[in-house]
Amino acid sequence: MTVTLVVLYSPPDDPEAFDRHYLEVHAPLVDRVPGLLAWDHGRLVAAVDGGDLPYYRIATLRFANQEALDAALGSAESQAAAEDYQNIAPPGSRMFSVDID
Amino acid sequence: MTVTLVVLYSPPDDPEAFDRHYLEVHAPLVDRVPGLLAWDHGRLVAAVDGGDLPYYRIATLRFANQEALDAALGSAESQAAAEDYQNIAPPGSRMFSVDID
Repeated sequence: MTVTLVVLYSPPDDPEAFDRHYLEVHAPLVDRVPGLLAWDHGRLVAAVDGGDLPYYRIATLRFANQEALDAALGSAESQAAAEDYQNIAPPGSRMFSVDID
Repeated sequence: MTVTLVVLYSPPDDPEAFDRHYLEVHAPLVDRVPGLLAWDHGRLVAAVDGGDLPYYRIATLRFANQEALDAALGSAESQAAAEDYQNIAPPGSRMFSVDID
């Protein structure tokens, strides 16, 4: 069963600097995570329901199953990405695992 | 530029009934939305950051670009899916559009 890791970033104080770091430093770290089948990332541009925009960015990382996600989270490459996440993720950012139907 | 529509469902009172309706009624309505390149949906199973789980389900719908999303949202098929969403989405559910990098 496919599993995804969904990361929601709260709005940063300096979106331009955040994007630069995210694309030039963080994304290459995520690229190296073992077992990652595919991933994408983007900026939230509108609340289609007319509400607020509590998040600035979303990333979705796809793994073959829970075991692959667990192995990835235990890897040195994931640790490097997680340390960078701790440095850049604004307070209120969230990270969830999802069982894809 | 690829655009996604991300739907986050708050936890329902009756998860089993919610899932049954979601999979048997709502998903087939979404399947019919024109311009939809691909989509997936699943249940949040863990907060990897150790926090709470404010959402129960996530769906990610992929479109070729903003124009395709706008056209989809204006379609009769999307209207049918939106009406069903209004019926089933627990309060606090959210819907965002995302510009994929």
